[in-house]
Amino acid sequence: MDRRRDIERPSPLPQHILSSTQFDRGFLDYLYTLTTTIRRFDKSREGLGYLQSLLPHKRAMLYFTQPSTRTFLSFQSACHVLGISASEIRDAATSSERKGESVEDSLRTFSSYVDLIIMRSPIAGLCERVAQLLDGTPRPVPIVNAGSGPDEHPTQALLDIYTLRRSLRLGGGIDGKTICMVGDLKRGRTVRSLARLLTNYDDVRIVFASPPAFRIAEDLRHDLSVSGLKFHETDDFEAAIADADAIYMTRIQDEYDAVGAEPVDTSRFHLTAAHLPRLKTDAVIMHPLPRRDELDVAIDDDPRAKYWRQERNGMWVRVALLTMLFGVDDRVQLPEL
Amino acid sequence: MDRRRDIERPSPLPQHILSSTQFDRGFLDYLYTLTTTIRRFDKSREGLGYLQSLLPHKRAMLYFTQPSTRTFLSFQSACHVLGISASEIRDAATSSERKGESVEDSLRTFSSYVDLIIMRSPIAGLCERVAQLLDGTPRPVPIVNAGSGPDEHPTQALLDIYTLRRSLRLGGGIDGKTICMVGDLKRGRTVRSLARLLTNYDDVRIVFASPPAFRIAEDLRHDLSVSGLKFHETDDFEAAIADADAIYMTRIQDEYDAVGAEPVDTSRFHLTAAHLPRLKTDAVIMHPLPRRDELDVAIDDDPRAKYWRQERNGMWVRVALLTMLFGVDDRVQLPEL
Amino acid sequence: MDRRRDIERPSPLPQHILSSTQFDRGFLDYLYTLTTTIRRFDKSREGLGYLQSLLPHKRAMLYFTQPSTRTFLSFQSACHVLGISASEIRDAATSSERKGESVEDSLRTFSSYVDLIIMRSPIAGLCERVAQLLDGTPRPVPIVNAGSGPDEHPTQALLDIYTLRRSLRLGGGIDGKTICMVGDLKRGRTVRSLARLLTNYDDVRIVFASPPAFRIAEDLRHDLSVSGLKFHETDDFEAAIADADAIYMTRIQDEYDAVGAEPVDTSRFHLTAAHLPRLKTDAVIMHPLPRRDELDVAIDDDPRAKYWRQERNGMWVRVALLTMLFGVDDRVQLPEL
Repeated sequence: MDRRRDIERPSPLPQHILSSTQFDRGFLDYLYTLTTTIRRFDKSREGLGYLQSLLPHKRAMLYFTQPSTRTFLSFQSACHVLGISASEIRDAATSSERKGESVEDSLRTFSSYVDLIIMRSPIAGLCERVAQLLDGTPRPVPIVNAGSGPDEHPTQALLDIYTLRRSLRLGGGIDGKTICMVGDLKRGRTVRSLARLLTNYDDVRIVFASPPAFRIAEDLRHDLSVSGLKFHETDDFEAAIADADAIYMTRIQDEYDAVGAEPVDTSRFHLTAAHLPRLKTDAVIMHPLPRRDELDVAIDDDPRAKYWRQERNGMWVRVALLTMLFGVDDRVQLPEL
Repeated sequence: MDRRRDIERPSPLPQHILSSTQFDRGFLDYLYTLTTTIRRFDKSREGLGYLQSLLPHKRAMLYFTQPSTRTFLSFQSACHVLGISASEIRDAATSSERKGESVEDSLRTFSSYVDLIIMRSPIAGLCERVAQLLDGTPRPVPIVNAGSGPDEHPTQALLDIYTLRRSLRLGGGIDGKTICMVGDLKRGRTVRSLARLLTNYDDVRIVFASPPAFRIAEDLRHDLSVSGLKFHETDDFEAAIADADAIYMTRIQDEYDAVGAEPVDTSRFHLTAAHLPRLKTDAVIMHPLPRRDELDVAIDDDPRAKYWRQERNGMWVRVALLTMLFGVDDRVQLPEL
Repeated sequence: MDRRRDIERPSPLPQHILSSTQFDRGFLDYLYTLTTTIRRFDKSREGLGYLQSLLPHKRAMLYFTQPSTRTFLSFQSACHVLGISASEIRDAATSSERKGESVEDSLRTFSSYVDLIIMRSPIAGLCERVAQLLDGTPRPVPIVNAGSGPDEHPTQALLDIYTLRRSLRLGGGIDGKTICMVGDLKRGRTVRSLARLLTNYDDVRIVFASPPAFRIAEDLRHDLSVSGLKFHETDDFEAAIADADAIYMTRIQDEYDAVGAEPVDTSRFHLTAAHLPRLKTDAVIMHPLPRRDELDVAIDDDPRAKYWRQERNGMWVRVALLTMLFGVDDRVQLPEL
């Protein structure tokens, strides 16, 4: 089991969080042990006060030019938890990009005032570009990718795995399990990041259940094949979920639909209360949220539904990541541990 | 006089602030005594530092999908006063509601990250619905109604009464006084909440002065009749204000006008400097602000004009309310008291 | 040299920051010495913690109804550095101005809740008007002009001079130097504020290089003539920059162009890498940013390029200004000084 391992602090610590491909199993084990430790500080006023004393001298920029509720809020709350002051830009219209400033200049400007940039952008690869640019300046600051177009969402994948790991811990953890991912697998960046991250675990099997039009992209298929992870693509939703240790539902990403495109019928891939009796008794139901009709609200009260916990876990995983980016993770020690 | 009473801490403390009907006289007396105590902390750096030490481990969401300046700012400032970290959503376009998320899911998401939700919404009854929803989850958080469509604005009513009480204290308090409310009584939610709250006082008489088209709604008329509070409706503005101990001016709520509707002439219900000699010498002039031409700026310098104090009082009443919601009101004790 | 002078604390301290004409040489020397002291606190966690302990009981409003990135962020960060809680309004559509409130009432409302108002507005003279209004109320608060239409931008000028002073310190400071200002000199408010502020230095010569259509405005020409500062207007960019100790590039302010106006050709006034060999070896290259094509990104790596430092200096000058507005500048003393 995970918890029996000797957990070593990764060295070097990451300078940026850009892609889920940058993490290995050792990093994940350390991050999640740290996260669980940090959550215990949440139990008392003193614990929370200690967390706030870790980084009150730091300032962060939340630069979100795509709509977001939970990623934005959970990062902002993670900053608050650690005492970090957070600035935000959510509407490029109020910024100097209106005056023709390049996005590189805007981000270098942020780096003049803050110690950390957390960014969501529709532009794939922008985070990497900015990280490289800033690394060449006298004042580099960490960049966190909080979602880059249809490409990557690495911190979502990190929190997804954390929830999987906790939810499956009585059954021996993630190794050896079957994870069923459902929905718009072609354009959902959370699926891309999560599948890649799962290659760090042993004997995991992924079943991708989607309409033919929404199968996973060729680059992901290739990467998974190379990794040796076993996966299977199907449009038989009913069979796929019956067999799964965890079901990861996702939303149709119709914001990327071409205008006037014929919508794909996804109704056969909706999880409803009627399916519950057919799932394993200890199955884990997850969803990165927001949801629409692919996940019935009637399921919320089922003990196997973990998506609301998954959401709150996201904040704590991000708190842990931020302590690592600033190198104060080694100050997170509970007296009683 | 109010201040001679033995003031008991309400038990139980409120879990949510949803409607002005939830408060009784004992609650009001306690809240206002607490507010006045808290204001004394504002006199010194040490006092303010003590207030900030009360709730630094708490986070609040200000979810305001209707325009607001003073309610928003006074709540945000109240959070700052108590050390609470505040997040804000003022534009649903930057949030996941853009992706088709239900308002219930959005609010449950907020509750995953914060400890308090303060909300203004155009949807009557939404606060109650959300409070009930969250009470059924493992992580309920307090909901504060900061204005719900044309329906209620309970914290505005609380601060209005606080200002009334302080302004009338030399004349024996609110009991037995005549309050004249003027303007768009049909759609002004502050009038609705305030009138209901005044039923907690003895022998108060309300004179509602408005054009016939803007008389109070039938449900309020009914509730006041049942309560036993004496009230009178008139369109004789001049007579009404001459007789009043307090005049509560309000703005025409034309944002609720039907498109193309003939505007109602309200010019006879404007308070101008010319009226000042006809008012009682110790009358109290109030307005929830913002104002337009119904309240002449030339009145601002008259000692009877209390609306700017009313505004600032709003912040302190909200500070007091927040201490009660988190149960730290009993830690608000000045050494010299 | 500046640093040998005895630096006296200005008395009285400024109540508001409205115009660059309000500062004299003594004020500048004090402010800049203070700024340099404060920057040294940035070197350690303890230093930053001390700065945050100076004003945690204060609240500021950032009221920015024109787009801004760096002025906004640097003021917000300056607030964070000092522990000040900052509220922001960047979109009048979410505020009560939507309900017809006057800008005077809106600003008086801010003053009810906060202790400082930092404002950017397209309306020339609004800051002065608001400062005067608030000074007549029981709760005056300091106003900081963070850019008033095409008129003034005094804190930008203060930070520009600070960067000039530091960059030229090995060569004896600003006195006696030639400063070349380039670009849209007619509408660029930073040029207006900076030129006025330079009249506080001895034997400075300004060369204004621009297309004829963008020459400095008549009122500035008049004020500089009266001041005795030597200045010269030219459209010979190449000659002007070769001779300059400092080159201050500016952006074309085309947001003020009349609709349909023929654009002015400014391409001869672009600074490119090809110009670098012709500049003095210790020349200082500045730009208030944002830039467009008037300043080649290839110049960024030249050691004479100071604009990114200029940007970060802006935050520290603003921190120093805020300590003076609240009268805690005298608590900024490093143990080792």
